[in-house]
Amino acid sequence: MAVSLIILAAGMGTRMNSDLPKVLHKVAASPLLHHALQAGRALEPARVVVVTGHGAADVAKAALAFDEAVETVVQDPQLGTAHAVAQAAPLLADAAGEAIVLYGDTPLIRPETLQAMLAARRDHAVVVLGFHAADPGRYGRLLTEGDKLLAIREYKDATEAERAVTLCNSGVICASAKVLFDLVAKVGNANAAGEYYLTDVVELARAAGLSAGVVICDEAETLGVNTRQQLAEAEAAFQARARAEALENGVTLTAPETVFFGLDTVVGRDAVIGPHVLFGPGVTIESGAEIKGFCHLEGCHVSRGADVGPFARLRPGAELAEDVHVGNFVEIKNAILEEGVKVGHLTYLGDAHVGEFTNIGAGTVTCNYDGVMKHRTTIGKRAFIGSDTMLVAPVTVGDGALTASGSVITEDVPAEAVAIGRAKQVTKPGLATKLFEKLKSIKAAKAKGQ
Amino acid sequence: MAVSLIILAAGMGTRMNSDLPKVLHKVAASPLLHHALQAGRALEPARVVVVTGHGAADVAKAALAFDEAVETVVQDPQLGTAHAVAQAAPLLADAAGEAIVLYGDTPLIRPETLQAMLAARRDHAVVVLGFHAADPGRYGRLLTEGDKLLAIREYKDATEAERAVTLCNSGVICASAKVLFDLVAKVGNANAAGEYYLTDVVELARAAGLSAGVVICDEAETLGVNTRQQLAEAEAAFQARARAEALENGVTLTAPETVFFGLDTVVGRDAVIGPHVLFGPGVTIESGAEIKGFCHLEGCHVSRGADVGPFARLRPGAELAEDVHVGNFVEIKNAILEEGVKVGHLTYLGDAHVGEFTNIGAGTVTCNYDGVMKHRTTIGKRAFIGSDTMLVAPVTVGDGALTASGSVITEDVPAEAVAIGRAKQVTKPGLATKLFEKLKSIKAAKAKGQ
Amino acid sequence: MAVSLIILAAGMGTRMNSDLPKVLHKVAASPLLHHALQAGRALEPARVVVVTGHGAADVAKAALAFDEAVETVVQDPQLGTAHAVAQAAPLLADAAGEAIVLYGDTPLIRPETLQAMLAARRDHAVVVLGFHAADPGRYGRLLTEGDKLLAIREYKDATEAERAVTLCNSGVICASAKVLFDLVAKVGNANAAGEYYLTDVVELARAAGLSAGVVICDEAETLGVNTRQQLAEAEAAFQARARAEALENGVTLTAPETVFFGLDTVVGRDAVIGPHVLFGPGVTIESGAEIKGFCHLEGCHVSRGADVGPFARLRPGAELAEDVHVGNFVEIKNAILEEGVKVGHLTYLGDAHVGEFTNIGAGTVTCNYDGVMKHRTTIGKRAFIGSDTMLVAPVTVGDGALTASGSVITEDVPAEAVAIGRAKQVTKPGLATKLFEKLKSIKAAKAKGQ
Repeated sequence: MAVSLIILAAGMGTRMNSDLPKVLHKVAASPLLHHALQAGRALEPARVVVVTGHGAADVAKAALAFDEAVETVVQDPQLGTAHAVAQAAPLLADAAGEAIVLYGDTPLIRPETLQAMLAARRDHAVVVLGFHAADPGRYGRLLTEGDKLLAIREYKDATEAERAVTLCNSGVICASAKVLFDLVAKVGNANAAGEYYLTDVVELARAAGLSAGVVICDEAETLGVNTRQQLAEAEAAFQARARAEALENGVTLTAPETVFFGLDTVVGRDAVIGPHVLFGPGVTIESGAEIKGFCHLEGCHVSRGADVGPFARLRPGAELAEDVHVGNFVEIKNAILEEGVKVGHLTYLGDAHVGEFTNIGAGTVTCNYDGVMKHRTTIGKRAFIGSDTMLVAPVTVGDGALTASGSVITEDVPAEAVAIGRAKQVTKPGLATKLFEKLKSIKAAKAKGQ
Repeated sequence: MAVSLIILAAGMGTRMNSDLPKVLHKVAASPLLHHALQAGRALEPARVVVVTGHGAADVAKAALAFDEAVETVVQDPQLGTAHAVAQAAPLLADAAGEAIVLYGDTPLIRPETLQAMLAARRDHAVVVLGFHAADPGRYGRLLTEGDKLLAIREYKDATEAERAVTLCNSGVICASAKVLFDLVAKVGNANAAGEYYLTDVVELARAAGLSAGVVICDEAETLGVNTRQQLAEAEAAFQARARAEALENGVTLTAPETVFFGLDTVVGRDAVIGPHVLFGPGVTIESGAEIKGFCHLEGCHVSRGADVGPFARLRPGAELAEDVHVGNFVEIKNAILEEGVKVGHLTYLGDAHVGEFTNIGAGTVTCNYDGVMKHRTTIGKRAFIGSDTMLVAPVTVGDGALTASGSVITEDVPAEAVAIGRAKQVTKPGLATKLFEKLKSIKAAKAKGQ
Repeated sequence: MAVSLIILAAGMGTRMNSDLPKVLHKVAASPLLHHALQAGRALEPARVVVVTGHGAADVAKAALAFDEAVETVVQDPQLGTAHAVAQAAPLLADAAGEAIVLYGDTPLIRPETLQAMLAARRDHAVVVLGFHAADPGRYGRLLTEGDKLLAIREYKDATEAERAVTLCNSGVICASAKVLFDLVAKVGNANAAGEYYLTDVVELARAAGLSAGVVICDEAETLGVNTRQQLAEAEAAFQARARAEALENGVTLTAPETVFFGLDTVVGRDAVIGPHVLFGPGVTIESGAEIKGFCHLEGCHVSRGADVGPFARLRPGAELAEDVHVGNFVEIKNAILEEGVKVGHLTYLGDAHVGEFTNIGAGTVTCNYDGVMKHRTTIGKRAFIGSDTMLVAPVTVGDGALTASGSVITEDVPAEAVAIGRAKQVTKPGLATKLFEKLKSIKAAKAKGQ
């Protein structure tokens, strides 16, 4: 069954005290908006519409960065949640099937919860997501009879008995696209704020003889981010969930509380993640790989048997094949390292391809930028790159070739050749002592002069 | 109104189990003593006197490091808190206005609390700082009537009813300098320990017909450090406060619990601080700058739009102008980087000035030490320093100049020139294979020989 | 009195969801098995037998890595704990004195607890270790009278009154070797699982007229590891204990919660450990040394007055004498640094010896691997290794010698000599501007061509 997602992301987020649109603040190294998109992705939606407003261009850009198929529409002026949904109506006029309304500032909804809402549509025309609040405060209350939703009662309109209800409205709602837009079109703004509230669709549905139902999720899933404190809480909640899942999946986390996963990090069984490891978006660690302490990874792939760190940074496009070793103070960017490659120390490999079982010496740098353009470095199999080799790209080093330590390689090196680009050592007996004496006398003279 | 601060810092701190004087143990990367000085600084005191004792010379040095205008006096022998205050009397004999007594081992008092004490002086000759203790234990109790202080009752002298009082004495006290020293001079030592207790001034004041009052602060502010466990607790309390303030001020902290602020760290709105970042003293991060994970900063300035890390270290004197990029495994010390400078990887810049929009290649080092003296490196605007360039200071590279990768630069490079200091590459076909065969046969022979 | 340890380490650990035998999963950077061995080591046991099973070869290897004197025996098939102990009987047939049965998956037992069990043997033939469980659940209950153990009652066989007992069985047991093996030989397997249970020896002992006693320890000591979540909990418990002990011993831990100690880390009084420091096995930090934030240490020794980091890695065999300075992005492996050596930045020293007061410039690398073999580098006293020096091992630099920045040193340098291996700088006026113009036109042409 086709599903359309409508994600409301127009809000200003005044309490964030920020120039950045609220939904672009990050949890797990990705914008809040991506979390809503990621939760929805599990439903394989046919259409996704993000309703933008504040910072519309930046929000739209972020939405497209997640998935180029996402559509966006601007809500301007911003007259309430029903009004926001109504902006998506023209785009989805001919959309068949289901529509779900999500919020760009609510990053913790689980795909299973959305699936439960879809399932509940078998019994109800409109399905609302509720949660039992530990402290219901001024949340709207869901008045129910079994799984039937009778009404959403705003706090200010509620009786004492109704206020005693702990089942609250998350705002997430599901209906057929047709019903949703029909109902939204009927919502009025005869209230103090003069806004169009999405919650009104429940009453309108029931007035039209349609059934409304409730699906209940953990309160933790409905955490909305309105302040930086809540942003930090959402980060903590996300990480707690991701760490627990990793442990359950057979990942070893030495110190779970110091590991920060990305939104889409995938870690295989029996992988070992040391303390103080940070994951950005797009990381896959295969089963049995090891990431030692103090590593920073994003947009990379680490294969079975590879080990990384401590103090290593893998940037987007780093692809480590099986049994690759990346050691300390090493940065890999947009580079493929084939099976068994070793890069032990103090190295920068960028825009490169390194063949299997090649050894990269300490202090090696791919000089990939000439001040104007970037260029690629290609190194063959079983080559030996001596310490402190500068590989001035574009350049190729052949299979089994060797570069001498301290060489600057500006021309291609054929397979099995040795390339040397360094001066011969000259030794001057006794000169060091004379030099230091001279420097000391200069220093003494300076000190006297002052 | 002129204010004099008297900071008691003579204690031995036996329970610290340390050779270091207690007030020199650090919280937030600064000695405890600096915290008391920092709290007092907000009052813009005319005079500051630190009473030293144990480790007097080291404590005095630390006091002067905070502010050269601080005066110190040695208490020897150490005969109690009133005796300590009395040591400051000769120095402050002609000091007009207010005097406040603080403690060098109590780092969490807030400036607002001290200001409230000064304000309360309108109504009372002597003002004592109290707090409601969760577990009053053997603290001295404050017996009050409204905001009037009737007496400070030592626990051992208290009745059951008095022991039920939870309002306790922090020891911090405020009076006019004249009144304080007059009262302190009258304190006797007719007690079991034979010591002169500052708390006695309240009774003496009331006996002299002077009014005493109370200002109440959070118990957390009065945390005194007597053990290393308490030192760690003070650190945790300081950081919790600093993190919450940063969030309130619109700073993004991905993982607040992993960020350690310095005593005087300033971070602007919409700056982003990643996980695992450490601040030493003297750091300012402007609005909109980004500090990525695993960074270590002290005595530095990071301007708007600049980004730093991961794995970067900024040491004292590092000044990053707008839009500077400092990447991984980079150390900057005593160096000014003008707008738009990029230092991406594996670099040490020390004692240097780099002009705007210059690019510093990976593996660059300012060779600032010749074994005897330190020297400066100056690089112009829009220059291009090739990877692995050694800049042997003192040396200057002009605007728009280029150094070839792998060069050792010992002579100044004029503007727009290219400087090359490297050998030409020589390639020897087939030699690598022969070399490895030879090494393998040597290894085999050695193995056989064993 | 001679003591034999029997450590049961045959279990499969199905709930770990891992290919690694359970006892090889790590806490505090060492296998669980090593923790049991370490606890037992304090008793100076005459004999240690590890009973292996699942992954027997790997477990035996790990046992020998801890101590070559450890003996191992394979339990196959695995028919219960008494059956496991019985496998050790032939090896210990002539062992005099005491025998203690420990568990390879129970890492937190304290040596003091084992000593208390030995002491209790004066009064009882068999001594069992018990603990008061916060949630006794389905643990076996210890039915006692004073310190006398009447029976171990399995939960399923217990009456309501017996289930109300909170004193539970840890499984750790102590007896004379002779008595233990005699009793174990009598244990039967007439139960639902058809297994031989070690707990049955208590009943058998009492039936034989022997006294059984109980020693009680904290529940925390008995934490067994069955899941990765419990592994993380054991890590947290170990670290909490190690951090508290360090603070009590007069170590300064800025942020205890971010420091991870190894099983056998030794840190002296007044040493300072910054935030985010990781210790592997075999580290000793002397009194007064400082380890700054973000350091990774294993198998190394840091002497008084030395300072390390931030961002430093000391690997096995790194020996830092007094007042050595190791700075940022520095890796030291299998290298002795004599008094006062300074290695400030971006350096790899491996397989080396550096004499006192020598200065190692930024970017220095010991090129210790030629693609086939590893070689050593020897540097004398008060030498000066210029920045970016490649020391191609085997090579020796004499006392007081100097290497010029950017040199590749392939031949020995005599004492007091200067060694230079670099090309002379050539400067080409105006060339940079021409080069960049050319590159820009190439780029423009390419862009046009697309």
